[in-house]
Amino acid sequence: MSDCELCREPGGLVVHRAAEWRVVRVADPDFPGFYRVIWNAHVAEFSDLDRAARQRCMEAVAAVEGALREALAPAKINLASLGNVVPHLHWHVIARFDWDSRFPQPVWAAARRTVEPPAEARLALSLAALDARVAGAAGAAGP
Amino acid sequence: MSDCELCREPGGLVVHRAAEWRVVRVADPDFPGFYRVIWNAHVAEFSDLDRAARQRCMEAVAAVEGALREALAPAKINLASLGNVVPHLHWHVIARFDWDSRFPQPVWAAARRTVEPPAEARLALSLAALDARVAGAAGAAGP
Repeated sequence: MSDCELCREPGGLVVHRAAEWRVVRVADPDFPGFYRVIWNAHVAEFSDLDRAARQRCMEAVAAVEGALREALAPAKINLASLGNVVPHLHWHVIARFDWDSRFPQPVWAAARRTVEPPAEARLALSLAALDARVAGAAGAAGP
Repeated sequence: MSDCELCREPGGLVVHRAAEWRVVRVADPDFPGFYRVIWNAHVAEFSDLDRAARQRCMEAVAAVEGALREALAPAKINLASLGNVVPHLHWHVIARFDWDSRFPQPVWAAARRTVEPPAEARLALSLAALDARVAGAAGAAGP
């Protein structure tokens, strides 16, 4: 699908690439622990995958979630597959903190506060170290 | 968890109850095709479930999604597990339409337009009929 952004482009900084999906980090200063699991083939909806593929997809999502929980001890993990603008299956996996700019609202709501110092500086580890943790978990989730 | 809203209350109009999860319809006039798959036991995060339970949970979500796609032919399905306010695992399954009040933004963004006639009147079938379709699909998804 040459007109699909996620068919043409990685969709973020690629931290792990598997046969059927990839994990990218989203560059969002408000949400440094924000990754996406993107299904490589062009399908729009989760239910376009068959049962076994759905399971493989969600095990990748759960692996990223698990890495974020272990590395960051966030207040909550947010998972979402929306795709209204880019209808190519991708799962947002976002670590949320009670100090973040929207908490407890979804990341798509209006900002409630300004975060000083920047959110990234509040993480327990560097983004490079976090990427490595996420990549390790993703690599263990499937081929 | 007596202090948890989704342990105390159904969380919406119950359209199907399975052993491990239930499906409720959310009363939101802007989004009439809005259901939740709520895990009955109190867990906060998707990755608190083991692999097999995650699969059963997501097959319920996929069943609701499939019923909404078949009944409503929406522009997109949105799936989300957030739980920042109520940290008890529940999946939002929302049919989105290009005419809805927020499209293509997430349902949690600010309204972009007023929908006249009301959104419910634009669906291809009544909410009671939609509930029945969703309940049928959910019932086929697991015990």
